Amino acid sequence: MTTTTVSNGIDVRALTETVEAVKDDPSLGAFTFRARSRWQDGTYNTGEIHTFRQDGGEDRSRAAAFTLHGDEPPVLLGANRGPNAVELLLQALAFCYAVGYVANAAARGIEITRMDYEVEGDFDVRPFLGLDGPRPGFTVIRAHGRVSSPNATREQLEELCRYVQETSPVRDSLINPVPVETTLEVV
Amino acid sequence: MTTTTVSNGIDVRALTETVEAVKDDPSLGAFTFRARSRWQDGTYNTGEIHTFRQDGGEDRSRAAAFTLHGDEPPVLLGANRGPNAVELLLQALAFCYAVGYVANAAARGIEITRMDYEVEGDFDVRPFLGLDGPRPGFTVIRAHGRVSSPNATREQLEELCRYVQETSPVRDSLINPVPVETTLEVV
Repeated sequence: MTTTTVSNGIDVRALTETVEAVKDDPSLGAFTFRARSRWQDGTYNTGEIHTFRQDGGEDRSRAAAFTLHGDEPPVLLGANRGPNAVELLLQALAFCYAVGYVANAAARGIEITRMDYEVEGDFDVRPFLGLDGPRPGFTVIRAHGRVSSPNATREQLEELCRYVQETSPVRDSLINPVPVETTLEVV
Repeated sequence: MTTTTVSNGIDVRALTETVEAVKDDPSLGAFTFRARSRWQDGTYNTGEIHTFRQDGGEDRSRAAAFTLHGDEPPVLLGANRGPNAVELLLQALAFCYAVGYVANAAARGIEITRMDYEVEGDFDVRPFLGLDGPRPGFTVIRAHGRVSSPNATREQLEELCRYVQETSPVRDSLINPVPVETTLEVV
């Protein structure tokens, strides 16, 4: 007799064990994530994402850093060598929602065969250019998901969407204020 | 006689013209940026960033979409096929700060020879796992910049750092609430 523990590509047994481990020792839940950037030319920067801390220890599971490229489109004085920062923020919300949806679906026995997100955000560049206008950031973000499941009702899928919103780290970081401490070193 | 209009790789004449154009017609400042995601397997999603709207029209300057990869590390049930969503959010802040710093330096005649950022954020995974804990998102984000300039004083560089914070689209989207509207389509 075999027990299926993988659902939607998620190891449900490992997920349950993770939840139990963090419940027993809440300090395991504490992470510090990081990203670095290095300016290259004009509006073009490269980025690196590599290690992170969990419960005070460094995670070394990644042999190499992920390299990212950030730039502006020509209309914002760049050369399209990468997406810009606000687009990357929208991408982060899409990925966050998708992971939350698929993982929680697995935990509930809901099989997912498709999960797409389209995220868009309205933004006015005037404050960035030093002109009067609305706030410098997004005035609103809209996320639209498309999900398919062979074994869940519409009501179950909609309830899961509400749950994922409530527990989404990126959504929470957007809808509620996050303190940002910025320091500068002149070298 | 030639006039230098490129500083830090930024075309300062084009920047000035952009500012004047948006000042004359504020509707040119209105952008809608987008990102899409498609679930692949487990915690792995791919993303696409391509067109955006400016003043009601589609920008078609990018021949192809940028492709991004999002995944979790093994400790969060993934296989490190990409950075995770909260790391991408930190990367967005680093890129946003860097573009703001270098572009505004160019406008002020400040030459930049180095501009790095290290951004880190504290985060507790318990709410995501359905456990009691702090907020689901970042409790605090710390950004540390390192800048070198051959022709600016420490005071000028520090003042610019303050200005960039005030006008940063990603910082504003974090320190102040952004409405996020989420819809789901069952297909």
